[in-house]
Amino acid sequence: MALSPYKQLEQEWKRLHAFRGAMAVLRWDAAVMMPRGSADVRGEQLAALETEYHALVTAPKVTRLLDRAQASTAGLQDWQIANLREMRRQRDFAIATPVALVSRLAKAASKAEMKWLAARETGKFEDLAPHLEEVVNLVRDKAQLLGQARKLSPYDALVDEFSPGLTSAEIDAMFKAMARRLPGLIRDVLARQEKQTLLPITGKFSASRQRALAVEIMKAVGFPFDRGRLDESEHPFTEGVPGDVRVTTRFDPTEPFSGLLGALHETGHAMYDVGLPPEFLDQPVGRDRGMALEESQSLLMEMIVCRSRGFVTYLRPLLEKHFGVSGPEWSEENLYAHLTRVQRGPIRVDADELTYSLHIQLRYELENQLLDGKLAVRNLRDAWNAGMEQRLSVKPRNDLEGVLQDVHWAVGSFGYFPSYALGAVMAAQFYESLRTAVPDVDAQIARGEFAGLMGWLRENVHSVGARVSPQELLKNATGKPLAATAALRYLESKYLADEPVVGSAAA
Amino acid sequence: MALSPYKQLEQEWKRLHAFRGAMAVLRWDAAVMMPRGSADVRGEQLAALETEYHALVTAPKVTRLLDRAQASTAGLQDWQIANLREMRRQRDFAIATPVALVSRLAKAASKAEMKWLAARETGKFEDLAPHLEEVVNLVRDKAQLLGQARKLSPYDALVDEFSPGLTSAEIDAMFKAMARRLPGLIRDVLARQEKQTLLPITGKFSASRQRALAVEIMKAVGFPFDRGRLDESEHPFTEGVPGDVRVTTRFDPTEPFSGLLGALHETGHAMYDVGLPPEFLDQPVGRDRGMALEESQSLLMEMIVCRSRGFVTYLRPLLEKHFGVSGPEWSEENLYAHLTRVQRGPIRVDADELTYSLHIQLRYELENQLLDGKLAVRNLRDAWNAGMEQRLSVKPRNDLEGVLQDVHWAVGSFGYFPSYALGAVMAAQFYESLRTAVPDVDAQIARGEFAGLMGWLRENVHSVGARVSPQELLKNATGKPLAATAALRYLESKYLADEPVVGSAAA
Repeated sequence: MALSPYKQLEQEWKRLHAFRGAMAVLRWDAAVMMPRGSADVRGEQLAALETEYHALVTAPKVTRLLDRAQASTAGLQDWQIANLREMRRQRDFAIATPVALVSRLAKAASKAEMKWLAARETGKFEDLAPHLEEVVNLVRDKAQLLGQARKLSPYDALVDEFSPGLTSAEIDAMFKAMARRLPGLIRDVLARQEKQTLLPITGKFSASRQRALAVEIMKAVGFPFDRGRLDESEHPFTEGVPGDVRVTTRFDPTEPFSGLLGALHETGHAMYDVGLPPEFLDQPVGRDRGMALEESQSLLMEMIVCRSRGFVTYLRPLLEKHFGVSGPEWSEENLYAHLTRVQRGPIRVDADELTYSLHIQLRYELENQLLDGKLAVRNLRDAWNAGMEQRLSVKPRNDLEGVLQDVHWAVGSFGYFPSYALGAVMAAQFYESLRTAVPDVDAQIARGEFAGLMGWLRENVHSVGARVSPQELLKNATGKPLAATAALRYLESKYLADEPVVGSAAA
Repeated sequence: MALSPYKQLEQEWKRLHAFRGAMAVLRWDAAVMMPRGSADVRGEQLAALETEYHALVTAPKVTRLLDRAQASTAGLQDWQIANLREMRRQRDFAIATPVALVSRLAKAASKAEMKWLAARETGKFEDLAPHLEEVVNLVRDKAQLLGQARKLSPYDALVDEFSPGLTSAEIDAMFKAMARRLPGLIRDVLARQEKQTLLPITGKFSASRQRALAVEIMKAVGFPFDRGRLDESEHPFTEGVPGDVRVTTRFDPTEPFSGLLGALHETGHAMYDVGLPPEFLDQPVGRDRGMALEESQSLLMEMIVCRSRGFVTYLRPLLEKHFGVSGPEWSEENLYAHLTRVQRGPIRVDADELTYSLHIQLRYELENQLLDGKLAVRNLRDAWNAGMEQRLSVKPRNDLEGVLQDVHWAVGSFGYFPSYALGAVMAAQFYESLRTAVPDVDAQIARGEFAGLMGWLRENVHSVGARVSPQELLKNATGKPLAATAALRYLESKYLADEPVVGSAAA
C-alpha cells in the first residue's frame, strides 16, 4: 500500500533532517577542527549540501504532497497538523530564496568566518570588512526576497526565520520598556556596588582544570556526554542535532568563570535540544521553537541559575576541588558579588544581566542600518564605537573589544541578535513561574540537583517542540503574554533588594 | 550559450566531489571525535548522503550526457576523454548497486564500526560478530550484483572497485611467487638474526612527545599542516580530500616507533592525495588510481623509506631531541636492527616486510570464504587463529591480537586487503626505478631531505591521477609490468646481503 501524502512528507523530512545533521557536523568541524587553509574546500561542501537541501525542499513533489496533505487532515493528530504547517513554512522560505543566492551566501559566509578568525589574530577589522560586505549584500538580497514572499519588512523576514512570528514591533516594545527603567536601575546598582567590598580573584586556571570543572557541572545538569561533546573554539556555540549535540566554550587561563559560564550558556541550548519531543526528532515540529526561545534557555542557565546564590553554594566547594583555591576571596559572598557584578564593559559575552540588553540594542540598530544601506561596512567600526560610548559610556580599546567580538554577522546571522534580548525577557518570565511550581528549586540547585529545574523546563518548554508559536508557548507555560515586566521585576529584586540566600533560607 | 555535455558532466562531478568530501569529514569525525552514543545519528546522515550521491550519479540526465559526450569526443583532450571513461565507470558501478542496498550497507557499516570500537574495549569478538554478519551479507549481495554488471566474479568485482583492473588472477600469481620464496627467506633471515645482538629499547614515550616527533618528520616530508591534520584514533587511517587531508595514528606510550610509522604510513597516502593533478581535483580523473597504488605509496614510505639506513641516520638525533634518549641502544646500528627486525607476530600493522604479505594472504583467503559462504562469521575467529598458526606459527592470545585487530571488514571493506600486498610489490618496483633516477635518494633522506623522493613520486605516480590503469601507470613509471620480482630482490638484498649505509657510502 502506498504511503499517505503526510507519511511521504515525513519520509522526505527524515532525509532533510539527516542533511541538516551532516551540515551541522561540517560547521562544527570548520570552527573547531578544520585546518585554516581548508576553508575553500569546506565552503564548496557546505554550498553543495545547502543547494541539495534547497532542491529537496522546493521539489514540485513536496509542494504537491503538501497540497494534498493539507487539503484533508482528517485522521491526523494535532502534532501532525502542526508538523504540516512547519513543513509548509520551510518550503515557503526555501521557495522565496533562489538556490544561487543560498549557495553564494553559504560560500561567502564560510569564507568570512575564516577571515573573522584570522582577524581575531591580527586585531584588524579591515581584514574582515570586504568579506563582511559581501555577506551583507547577499543577506540584504535574501531579506528583500523573503520579505516580499512573507509580506513582512525585509528585517522582520530575517527575524521570522530565526524566531517564527516575532516582529520588530515586539522587539521595539521590549527595548522601549527596558530603556525606560534600565539606565536608572544601572545607576542605582552601580552606586550601591560602590559601597560593597569586592575582593579580587586572581590566579592561573589551566584549561584542563577549567574543563574538568565545566564537565562536572554539565554532568550534574544532565548534559549527555555519551551523545555530546565539549570543545574549545574562538566563540562559544552549540551545534549538532539531538543525539549528537556539541557545545564549545573558550577558556581564559587568567579568569575562572568566563569559560565555565560560556559552557553552561551553551549547555542551556543543548538541554533544549536533548529535551525535544523524542517521537518527532527528525520532523520540523520536533525542532526547537526558534532562537529567542533557544536563548531563553541558555540565558536562564547562564544568567539566572549560574548567578544565583543557590548555585554559588554549589559552586564554591567545586572551585576548591578543581582549582585548589580557598580563602576569603573564594567565600560564597565574594563569589556571588563577582558573578553579579554590574559593569559597563565592552564585551557582550562578558556583560552582566543589566547591561546585556544595551549591547544587543546597539547590534539591533546597527544591523538594521547595515541592511537598510544607511550604514556602510567600512563605517561600521566607528558607528559601533560611537554607539558603545553613547549607550554604555564605554570606549573599546581595539577592534577585538569592539566590532570583531561577535561572529554572527560574518556568518550571515542578521536578525539573530534580538533573540538574546527576547530570550533574557522570556527566561525571567519562565523562572518566575518555575519558582512557583517548584518552590525549592534554589535549594535544589544549592545541592547540585538540577532535576526540578530541568523537569519543569522539559515539560513546559523543551518537549513542546515547534507545535505552537513562541508567544503561545510562553503563554501556556507562564499564563502571561511576552512582556519585559517579569525581567525588570527579577532584575530589581536581585540587584537592589538583594533577596536572601534561598538555599540557606529553605534549609 | 549552453555548456557542452562534457562541461555539464564536469559540473555534475564537481558537486559529487563536494558530497564525497562531506562524507569524508563525517567518517573522520565518527572515528576521531564523535561521541560513542551518536553512531545511529551518524549512520542516518551518511546513509542519506550516500543515497543522494547514488541518485545523482545514476540520474537519467547523467547517462544521457555521458552518451552524448562519449559519442563525439572531438575537441576533448586526452585527460578529458579519460575523465569521461572514469565517469562512466562510476555511473556503471552505481547503476549496478540499488540504492536500498547502498543505504542499508552504509548504516550497517556505521553501526558495526562502533561495535568494533566497543569490542576493542571488551576484547570479545562476540560483541562484533552479529553486526559483522549483517555487513557480510550485504557485501555479498553487492558483490553479486557488481559481478553480474561488470562480468567479473563477485570477489573480483569488489577488488575492481578498489583497484580498477586488478584481478584475482594477478593476486594469486603474486601470492604464488611470494610463497615460493618467502618461507625460505624468512627462515634464513631469522637464523641470521639470531647471531646479531639486539639491545632492547624501553622507556615511556608520552603521546605528546611522539606527536611532536611525528609532526616534525611529516613536515620534512612535505605534509601540509595548513590543509591537513594529524590525530589519534583506534586504527590509523587517512581521510578527506586534497585541500583537507587528515591522517591518524595510534601512539603506544611504551613503544617509540609504532605511532610514528603509523603516521608516516598515512603520510604516504596523504602525499599521494596532495600530489594529484591540481587542475582535475574535483573530477574522477583527478583521483588516485585505486587502493593498491595508494598502499604502494604508504608502504613505500613506512616500509622502504622509514626502515632504511638513510632514514635511521636522520631519525637518531630526532629521537634524542624529542625523547631525550641516548646510549648504545639508540645507536644507528641498533635502531636499524629494531626497525628491520623480522618476527612472526600476530598483528598485521606491526608486521615486518617479510611476514607482512602472509598476514594479507590469510585475510584474502578468509574474506573470500566469508563471501562464498564457505566460512560463517561465527567461525571466523577459529579460522583466523588456525590460519595464523599454520602460516606464521603464531597463536593470537586473544581477539585483540587476532580477529579484532582490523576495522576493514566491519566497515564493509572486502576486497581491500590484497591492495596491501599488491602495494608492497608495487612500492619495491617504484623504488628500484627511483633509485636509478635519483641515485643519491638515500643520502638525501639521511639529511632529512625528501624532495628527491617526493619529486619522483609526484611526477611518476601522484600527478598521473586516474588517467591510466594501475598496470599502465606502473609500466610507464618503471618500464616493467607488475611482478613480485623487484620486491623479492629488494627483500633479499636488504635482509640477507645487508647492503651498506647508502647515505654514508655516497657521502
